[in-house]
Amino acid sequence: MNDNKPFYEHHVFFCTNVREDGSRPSCGKCGAFDAQQHAKQRIKQLGLNGPGKVRINKAGCMDRCEEGPVVVIYPQGTWYTYVDTTDIDEIIDRHIMQGEVVERLKI
Amino acid sequence: MNDNKPFYEHHVFFCTNVREDGSRPSCGKCGAFDAQQHAKQRIKQLGLNGPGKVRINKAGCMDRCEEGPVVVIYPQGTWYTYVDTTDIDEIIDRHIMQGEVVERLKI
Repeated sequence: MNDNKPFYEHHVFFCTNVREDGSRPSCGKCGAFDAQQHAKQRIKQLGLNGPGKVRINKAGCMDRCEEGPVVVIYPQGTWYTYVDTTDIDEIIDRHIMQGEVVERLKI
Repeated sequence: MNDNKPFYEHHVFFCTNVREDGSRPSCGKCGAFDAQQHAKQRIKQLGLNGPGKVRINKAGCMDRCEEGPVVVIYPQGTWYTYVDTTDIDEIIDRHIMQGEVVERLKI
């Protein structure tokens, strides 16, 4: 059932959920907004944004809160966590540009 | 580079972006919030929510505004538009439960 040619080669979703009650950790309180903005700008700088290429999106809670902050890249279905924009740059350089999994950040 | 076993068998992202300036159509003004809530409740009723099964998420603008409202299902990478909750039910029944593409709603 997979489409042969995806609309985006890499469709990246950052959880930016903010959980005010603190019942579980939430990505939106762990740098997700900055990380998403950084990724979006970096992809644009590299000229990689657009159909057939890369799209960076925000998303609601993806229910992997305890492993977060989380980002998932489709259609590969690879999930990563990150600490800072250095980690985001590594995901962009290696996963998106070179097509390899960043094992140290994979969840 | 595809993972063999996806964390979610069907990871569904509804664009819920609201564009106040009206420069382009926006899914959030075309029933996306109701559609996403409906899908989330329906999947829960069916007992299909959770790891290994289905996740229903909101997402920001996925840049297919003129074809919207849009929803994308990964890892298949199938994009749909919809008019109402009847269309959403058809996507759930046929794509998610029976594994077939709903050609009349596919974009």
